[in-house]
Amino acid sequence: MSIKIQVLNNILEINESYAAQNRETFEANHCFSVNMMSSPGSGKTTLLEKTLERLDPSEVAIIEGDMQTTKDAERLERFGCQIVQISTGNACHLDGKMIHDAVEDLDLSGVRLLVIENVGNLVCPAEFRVGEHAKVVILSVTEGEDKPLKYPLMFREAAVCILSKIDLLPHLDFSLEEARRNALQINPQLEFFSISCRTGEGLDEWTDWLRKRMKG
Amino acid sequence: MSIKIQVLNNILEINESYAAQNRETFEANHCFSVNMMSSPGSGKTTLLEKTLERLDPSEVAIIEGDMQTTKDAERLERFGCQIVQISTGNACHLDGKMIHDAVEDLDLSGVRLLVIENVGNLVCPAEFRVGEHAKVVILSVTEGEDKPLKYPLMFREAAVCILSKIDLLPHLDFSLEEARRNALQINPQLEFFSISCRTGEGLDEWTDWLRKRMKG
Repeated sequence: MSIKIQVLNNILEINESYAAQNRETFEANHCFSVNMMSSPGSGKTTLLEKTLERLDPSEVAIIEGDMQTTKDAERLERFGCQIVQISTGNACHLDGKMIHDAVEDLDLSGVRLLVIENVGNLVCPAEFRVGEHAKVVILSVTEGEDKPLKYPLMFREAAVCILSKIDLLPHLDFSLEEARRNALQINPQLEFFSISCRTGEGLDEWTDWLRKRMKG
Repeated sequence: MSIKIQVLNNILEINESYAAQNRETFEANHCFSVNMMSSPGSGKTTLLEKTLERLDPSEVAIIEGDMQTTKDAERLERFGCQIVQISTGNACHLDGKMIHDAVEDLDLSGVRLLVIENVGNLVCPAEFRVGEHAKVVILSVTEGEDKPLKYPLMFREAAVCILSKIDLLPHLDFSLEEARRNALQINPQLEFFSISCRTGEGLDEWTDWLRKRMKG
């Protein structure tokens, strides 16, 4: 179906153009931007809460992507940072234009970190660059070590892989070592953080990583 | 973008036509068919293993959908039932044509249950009927009670919702009651099974549900 492929190519081209514009805006404001992606329920919003507790909220802005509901944005309101909610309706991912429009509602002067929380989906968001400096994939240890091999594009595109919910490890048959090995097989450059938002383990290392880039 | 919408409509129309053909094939063979969908890592394949232990494998056929790898199909080989693996490449869901082609590789005479394990994705598979008698959505209790509200299409389309990994409940802040209430708000007809593949809890009720429909 050549029409289908043609339309798809156009969509991706238009997306790249918005992504490039977004990147310019981030650079002009000295704002480091991360695109956080994962399966539904792997703990993106909880990680974001714990991250905001450790950073200066006035230096952080957030774009929340959800198909429906504003629940995640509401959970983050108490931190007082700028938040824009994108409701994607039936769309399974955020794209460059959505981020472009959301950024128009933000004042990025003084903002050193823009966190984009994508729709919970380990597949489609990986195909759409939004201008971010780094893609971060979160894999909950309840999901199994095989996920990097089964969803390779996401792990290939990511700069950072956060292994979350590690407090549950004693109750699971999950090997951190095997998960890392599988992910490195797909992307040898991946950096890892093993985190429990319950116990706090690993959160300082992760926020240090962000802080370093917020200064750059 | 009217071309984009036109192409999408065509895709969905073609899909419906394949789905209808598939359904006729299932009916002609007195074969009950379920389309199992969930986030990555919520335990579809493990549930399928436990289900196959409780049924006569000669009466069951399986279509395994994965973007990459044949790991899930390999895990099920030991049961000796017919299995067809679909590798979707970059596609984020199974569609009617893929199932149509896979069914051509199956001998459905004597098969009373066809299980279609979809790509791990709580979003896109819900949009594509494949001719199944029932859609089954699996929600692991590690994913949070809010998921039916955030991914409503999946829960609206499903006939059955399996709440999986309930052995982990003591280690989580998850309320089965709230999850059920949220799902029923989207779809008041939903039937529920609460299951632990570790302890075996709930598996007999689930396989009884299947057995009743295999006889029908």
